[in-house]
Amino acid sequence: MIKIAVLGYGTVGSGVVHVLETNKDLIAKRVGQEIEVSKVLDLRDFEGDPIQAKITHNYDDILNDDEIKIVVEVMGGVEPAYTFVKQALLKGKHVATSNKALVADKGSELLKIAKDNNINFLFEASVGGGIPIIRPIFSSLTAEDITDIKGILNGTTNYMLTKMGEEGAEYDDVLKDAQNKGYAEADPTADVEGYDACRKIAILTALANEQFVDFNDIKTEGITKISKTDMKYADALNATIKLIGASHKENDKVYAYVAPILFEKSHPLAGVSDVFNAIFVKGNMLGDAMFYGQGAGKDATASAVVADIIDEARNLDANIGYSWSEDKLELADIDTLPMKYFVRVKGDKEADVKSSFGDVRFVKADGVADETAFVTDLIKASELNDKLNSFELITAIKAEI
Amino acid sequence: MIKIAVLGYGTVGSGVVHVLETNKDLIAKRVGQEIEVSKVLDLRDFEGDPIQAKITHNYDDILNDDEIKIVVEVMGGVEPAYTFVKQALLKGKHVATSNKALVADKGSELLKIAKDNNINFLFEASVGGGIPIIRPIFSSLTAEDITDIKGILNGTTNYMLTKMGEEGAEYDDVLKDAQNKGYAEADPTADVEGYDACRKIAILTALANEQFVDFNDIKTEGITKISKTDMKYADALNATIKLIGASHKENDKVYAYVAPILFEKSHPLAGVSDVFNAIFVKGNMLGDAMFYGQGAGKDATASAVVADIIDEARNLDANIGYSWSEDKLELADIDTLPMKYFVRVKGDKEADVKSSFGDVRFVKADGVADETAFVTDLIKASELNDKLNSFELITAIKAEI
Repeated sequence: MIKIAVLGYGTVGSGVVHVLETNKDLIAKRVGQEIEVSKVLDLRDFEGDPIQAKITHNYDDILNDDEIKIVVEVMGGVEPAYTFVKQALLKGKHVATSNKALVADKGSELLKIAKDNNINFLFEASVGGGIPIIRPIFSSLTAEDITDIKGILNGTTNYMLTKMGEEGAEYDDVLKDAQNKGYAEADPTADVEGYDACRKIAILTALANEQFVDFNDIKTEGITKISKTDMKYADALNATIKLIGASHKENDKVYAYVAPILFEKSHPLAGVSDVFNAIFVKGNMLGDAMFYGQGAGKDATASAVVADIIDEARNLDANIGYSWSEDKLELADIDTLPMKYFVRVKGDKEADVKSSFGDVRFVKADGVADETAFVTDLIKASELNDKLNSFELITAIKAEI
Repeated sequence: MIKIAVLGYGTVGSGVVHVLETNKDLIAKRVGQEIEVSKVLDLRDFEGDPIQAKITHNYDDILNDDEIKIVVEVMGGVEPAYTFVKQALLKGKHVATSNKALVADKGSELLKIAKDNNINFLFEASVGGGIPIIRPIFSSLTAEDITDIKGILNGTTNYMLTKMGEEGAEYDDVLKDAQNKGYAEADPTADVEGYDACRKIAILTALANEQFVDFNDIKTEGITKISKTDMKYADALNATIKLIGASHKENDKVYAYVAPILFEKSHPLAGVSDVFNAIFVKGNMLGDAMFYGQGAGKDATASAVVADIIDEARNLDANIGYSWSEDKLELADIDTLPMKYFVRVKGDKEADVKSSFGDVRFVKADGVADETAFVTDLIKASELNDKLNSFELITAIKAEI
């Protein structure tokens, strides 16, 4: 029997206990022995709940329990998670976490400590919830030079954009609806401003390039400026708008960004609706691949955490080699990469647009007047901004169309 | 440096050499040492080609070369692949293969020999080409009781069905087109009758249930009876038809089959077009997930083979645990599982259909007369056939709608 401890008995923590109980027999068969949750760290007592007997309020009870071989960190946030995880690893305990903030910020150091101690620090659930993506990048796409990652990495914003696209609803209304359904927090900033997606694409970019990526370097734009009129235009273009965390490699430069992107409906990411997540990957040999599933949700996320626990239980005395270099990857400036843009400017400016941008694709939307909308050719953001100086800009959204 | 040999210098074999050369440096970095193709077995000489120097016509040259640690079998077919692979494993050489026929037929025995010899027999490329699916099922979805697998596992038939759906083309015409494009063989039987998909779903079902599955037990229906009229009806139902290899677990019974299935367009599999493959997986904790990508193609398939080579090179002295029991899994009879069906019968039979089937969903297609089409509720195939005895059946297609 392998004893483990769970730090935090919230949604994911209770999910981990639930998955371990529900699939107890098959997990024991796959590991070769039973996995038992022996202690759970939480501030609360959970009186009357069966978990009560395992609750401790003192992390030292876990840290100093030599029988506990694996610590599951599902508290979220950088502190005290970082201190707890580091202490556990230094004590020779494996760690499995779903905490994207911790992995994005402290992953390099924690991976190195794990390697030095011949144990594992795993974080499959930190990106894409239940979708296997960390392990496939690390252990399946090993023959690939990954040139592109484009992920719908945040279920809340994908739900909101799906509703705006399908129902023609306005941003404020879908946000309220998402909050009512429990998909969005009372303070939705981390989701709608793209901060959540930013940490996740930082992790994926680090894995794909085997180097630390500082999420602070990633230009991040959320969905707060997307309107139902933008969605009308998208529809007229047979397209839809998704919030994407992306990384792109070209001529040995790596770019990473978070931004809304207008995709043609035939793009595999365009069909990813509601709270589902998907990660589209392009490799130099593989071509296009996509991983799709539930990016959040108690049991799905917990399932990914338990997969890490199982991997650690199977490799108690071996580091399985997840790592990236601590040297920071210097990202190239995304504004220097030519991309297409969907642009709306005030007034009837077709002639002016043509003289500035050449032969662009104009688009009309039902019931929208007194403005000019078009899709540019590939252009650098700096050049785009120069050209737009002589217009009254409504919005410019990156486009793959 | 790790020396390997390649059996068969056809599409996949030359692709393996190409991938190893193109990504030589990053592969060496990931493995910790270089991988060198030292011998290639083929009947041909490839005069003037750089590979010529490595060609041997005698398998013993490879078998008896103790420096060769990994044998890559990409010849296809059961023999002589089986004999060669077995000999290699018994000699303590790892094997990576893309050969679905070999894995479906002899996988249990070869996995056991590998385990007994503390080496590995890996076959990521045998299902879904470049799509990571074997390794994710084996090493990512380990916390899951996988209840459903539904795969678009054959690119040729998916290309044909996509063309029929999009262009309203007839079966014979799209087959000819697929043959002209090199997607279909001169003798297309293995693809269009579902035999290829059958071996692949046998492998996936064995992995998910950790037991040998005899592909001969899998009821297999191809696409030869699908007509452009069926596609017209599908369109009227806002659906499309895909050839699916499926396995389903319910009440401890496992069902597996290959058949065309009519899916609503909102289903993630419905959007998988042309030669792309996708495998949809449902786990009891995870919910729905999907893996999408190129199911064939030289470099994509070779990339999956090279991922196996890398895994073996990283684990030269360890069996990484891929296995399933040699005890055959007894599949339940798919005809006893209630499913929905899209049915077409001759004549205007709405009243008769209602009296036999109750309140079903009728459907009309433009320009189709003198027949009655409808979608049943869940019904066992045996009961469906009984009820259809009093009608002149045109076709009955499984439906998820």
